[in-house]
Amino acid sequence: MTDTPSPPAYAPPAYAPPSGAARDSLLDAVRFDANGLVACIAQQHDSGEVLMMAWMNRQAVEETLTTGRVCYYSRSRKGLWRKGESSGQLQHLVELRVDCDGDTLLALVHQLGVACHTGRRNCFYRAIRDGELTTIAEPLMDPAALYGAAHAGHSHG
Amino acid sequence: MTDTPSPPAYAPPAYAPPSGAARDSLLDAVRFDANGLVACIAQQHDSGEVLMMAWMNRQAVEETLTTGRVCYYSRSRKGLWRKGESSGQLQHLVELRVDCDGDTLLALVHQLGVACHTGRRNCFYRAIRDGELTTIAEPLMDPAALYGAAHAGHSHG
Repeated sequence: MTDTPSPPAYAPPAYAPPSGAARDSLLDAVRFDANGLVACIAQQHDSGEVLMMAWMNRQAVEETLTTGRVCYYSRSRKGLWRKGESSGQLQHLVELRVDCDGDTLLALVHQLGVACHTGRRNCFYRAIRDGELTTIAEPLMDPAALYGAAHAGHSHG
Repeated sequence: MTDTPSPPAYAPPAYAPPSGAARDSLLDAVRFDANGLVACIAQQHDSGEVLMMAWMNRQAVEETLTTGRVCYYSRSRKGLWRKGESSGQLQHLVELRVDCDGDTLLALVHQLGVACHTGRRNCFYRAIRDGELTTIAEPLMDPAALYGAAHAGHSHG
């Protein structure tokens, strides 16, 4: 018997930040658009679930690679959007991949909780079923609890 | 013993086109950007592999839903891009999903052959490994064979 606490139910994968040179070689492969942005798809690393798509500027890519926590650029708020900063629903980075044209990134992540601001696990919850556009997944968390009453109705955070 | 031919090694999933009303209800949920485009992620429906990301205009979404074969909009060629039309590497649609904000689609597909114009199965083949940006997947097909010598070096088709 020891006082060693139990490990948490799930520990995010270990993350080793790349060197500055490695980080720059990835950044050099990215073709930021006229607004300085690149699309980034977030995929749960083990299940393959596609969670969301958002945008990054150069600083967001750098911060994501350095900290191992995914940081986007919010086009509506015009600033860095540290995923989970207000909601607690962090995305831990496993690997950041660059596509053939350099205009899309694929972030393999471990998503704590839910990725979508509606409280759903992922954002792609509408599809045609039985002849009409249907909600195919329900919220796992209350959006008001994620953002607080003052932020209810807010977009992603 | 019969003359019945053997089934193909893999038959694409059956696809039932939605009614015009169902198709329009999905289109109504899409927020096309200032250029009339929406981002679309293609994911292999059974393995979860993220294959590529490209753009669709309204006509491409309609054609994709109607035909069950994925059709994008090529920003470089400024026209519809029927995936696989020149390369034979068709994407058969299983389901098209719309995200919470309506600005990204997720197409669950069956990809015949390879999705990437480099001959790789998917486009996301570069990542930092061992301290440098590394090619983590090799071509399964020769790009010259996909597009013919005249088109070698061409972008996606």
